[in-house]
Amino acid sequence: MKQVIVVNEALRLPRGKLAAQVAHAAVAAYLHAPRDVQRRWLKEGMPKVVLRCETEAELLDLYAAATAAGLPASLIRDAGHTVLEPGTVTCAGIGPAAPADLEPLTGVLRLVR
Amino acid sequence: MKQVIVVNEALRLPRGKLAAQVAHAAVAAYLHAPRDVQRRWLKEGMPKVVLRCETEAELLDLYAAATAAGLPASLIRDAGHTVLEPGTVTCAGIGPAAPADLEPLTGVLRLVR
Repeated sequence: MKQVIVVNEALRLPRGKLAAQVAHAAVAAYLHAPRDVQRRWLKEGMPKVVLRCETEAELLDLYAAATAAGLPASLIRDAGHTVLEPGTVTCAGIGPAAPADLEPLTGVLRLVR
Repeated sequence: MKQVIVVNEALRLPRGKLAAQVAHAAVAAYLHAPRDVQRRWLKEGMPKVVLRCETEAELLDLYAAATAAGLPASLIRDAGHTVLEPGTVTCAGIGPAAPADLEPLTGVLRLVR
């Protein structure tokens, strides 16, 4: 089992802000997963990877594809108190899920550096 | 309810790596919280903040103080496949908990930028 968090890198969020948004996505997507998938993922050490996309449209498409595929997924919008406009889409969490189910959706995406 | 994730900024982790470690800490600390606290925090929109400390020793002390105070807490060690030595302590999640219970431990810490 693996979890993928995809970040809208058009925003170039600062480190701390990015980390908080990714953590939101991770917790929210986890809560959408079936109990047995949650258990397996925790037992395996919660593997997760943070990947990038380049536009908000790309992120929305990815989220729609994940939910259409029946994968646990979360879309995170910033409350906009600080850096961003309210409602800005910052990232999406997909999984935990089987790597084979994530691959068609996120296999081409690169790591956030 | 609020969750705090404290990062060992001596490591100056790159953005994606930092985000993944903070997400580990957020999920792990969440799972240590009592069910009613989990529910309240989720209902309130999972408020979380990413703060910095300057040494591993400081992070270990903070984690020990949090567990001694009976707060849900997680200490994250990197598996060390990539950037870090195996077992390097990267961050700690504390909470969800009442802000008044977090304040004595983390009130002086600054935000990660």
